[in-house]
Amino acid sequence: MKATVIGLGLIGGSIALDLKKAGLVTHMTGVDLSSQHTEEALKLGLVDEIVQPDAVKEVDLVIMAIPVSALVKVLPGILDVVPSHAVVMDTGSTKSQICKAVTGHPKRAQFVASHQIAGTENSGPAAAFSGLFRSKTNIICERERSSTETLELALKVFDALGMNTIFMEPEEHDRHVAYVSHLSHVSSFLLGQTVLDIERDEKNIFDLAGSGFASTVRLAKSSPDMWAPIFEQNAEYLSQALLEYIMHLQRFQYFLMKRDAKELHKIMTEANHIREILNGIELKQPKSNTVK
Amino acid sequence: MKATVIGLGLIGGSIALDLKKAGLVTHMTGVDLSSQHTEEALKLGLVDEIVQPDAVKEVDLVIMAIPVSALVKVLPGILDVVPSHAVVMDTGSTKSQICKAVTGHPKRAQFVASHQIAGTENSGPAAAFSGLFRSKTNIICERERSSTETLELALKVFDALGMNTIFMEPEEHDRHVAYVSHLSHVSSFLLGQTVLDIERDEKNIFDLAGSGFASTVRLAKSSPDMWAPIFEQNAEYLSQALLEYIMHLQRFQYFLMKRDAKELHKIMTEANHIREILNGIELKQPKSNTVK
Repeated sequence: MKATVIGLGLIGGSIALDLKKAGLVTHMTGVDLSSQHTEEALKLGLVDEIVQPDAVKEVDLVIMAIPVSALVKVLPGILDVVPSHAVVMDTGSTKSQICKAVTGHPKRAQFVASHQIAGTENSGPAAAFSGLFRSKTNIICERERSSTETLELALKVFDALGMNTIFMEPEEHDRHVAYVSHLSHVSSFLLGQTVLDIERDEKNIFDLAGSGFASTVRLAKSSPDMWAPIFEQNAEYLSQALLEYIMHLQRFQYFLMKRDAKELHKIMTEANHIREILNGIELKQPKSNTVK
Repeated sequence: MKATVIGLGLIGGSIALDLKKAGLVTHMTGVDLSSQHTEEALKLGLVDEIVQPDAVKEVDLVIMAIPVSALVKVLPGILDVVPSHAVVMDTGSTKSQICKAVTGHPKRAQFVASHQIAGTENSGPAAAFSGLFRSKTNIICERERSSTETLELALKVFDALGMNTIFMEPEEHDRHVAYVSHLSHVSSFLLGQTVLDIERDEKNIFDLAGSGFASTVRLAKSSPDMWAPIFEQNAEYLSQALLEYIMHLQRFQYFLMKRDAKELHKIMTEANHIREILNGIELKQPKSNTVK
């Protein structure tokens, strides 16, 4: 099978690596706007060849791993030109607007709207690694709008990546990721900014930062190019999640100012229940995430 | 040298382990209010013997690793009864109120106010491990109020733990940890609560949670018994940090509602500078933190 990955970053590059490794794809080509990215991707062996976007006319599978703002613009045109047997899938972290962009498209049945719950705070071809998706969750939206053959090939791809696929409607997807993914990123970015801000007046403040701070603020290293469009597309649900988070913070502050240690203790004890959920998430992580 | 650790949790237990390992302490005794903790600590070999608090009359070194609310109450009485050559040190995450609790104490010179920037989200004797403090930062406050001999012994202890000691005034310490430690804990606890809250209505929401969420919310597993008193004692500085954090979140939400991707991008790009700081923190971590 011949495949093209459009967008040779962490996600696109890691998919390319594993599909070649699994033998599912025999000739892997890649497209990226950045010549630095294409050079790196070739050098790292993520793809066999760099091609122009119109090369998708000749392939069996197209994987689109570009920012969601670019996806909604480019996706319909890609669907226009792929062969009538080919499958196109995306990797976007939002699903409603992407699905809307191809609603009514004559070749909608050849598209699979998908989102892989996997990633790191790093970006670019050099951040790609084999095994990124192993044991992670994959979401397919609007499954009934993809043809049986299209869905079949897509599931082969996700199997080759070692993923567990679940099905969900786009709005439900976007509402859920607002809470369990987008909000964590916002909280981390702004925690980073708050501490960087104060650092201007308080030199050496980071002497006192430990591994707990590092863990909480890790996502603040994420790519703004990727995340600004995600936040924009998911603004309604994210804003709701953010309002609830701010409300909880303000309630905590109220008890803090009252020196009400009992109420603070109660809030933290409730939050401790996250432990059981985190244990479940940790089981999904591969043993090592640095295997190149 | 004979030493007693009061409070056999993650911090006290890990100190006991490493001081024995380094050969600095030949007989290590332990005190804890919980009989489950004392049994576990003995079984795990953290201490050689469990004793009553008045056994500190016979030792050369006392390390107090109990919640900061208990510290301010118990510390003066412990200082009262230790031998005139003995050294007492604490491990509390706040320093102003602890220092105040012994200001003017006739044996103040035998006390070292210290805080080790090390820990995990786990607690209790079973969470203790050798190497927890290696290459981490240790802070000593009011160094001029400890006698030369006292300070000398304390530095031997921190050397044995493999720590880098810096000196700071209590208020400066408390202001800095409010930002780089206490605020991360609050943001994590409340992020956990926000998502647990929404889960009541949205079943299976955690299917969509990945390693990013896990990292950001990890500190929400921390012990409320330990953290409620810390937040209470550091309420002024923490409240200030929390207000600034909330202000940043609200500003972000303003641009989110305006769909101003450019402004969101700018905020995230600024927050990205945390990368350089995190690289510095990661260098301080030991290679493995699971060595028992």
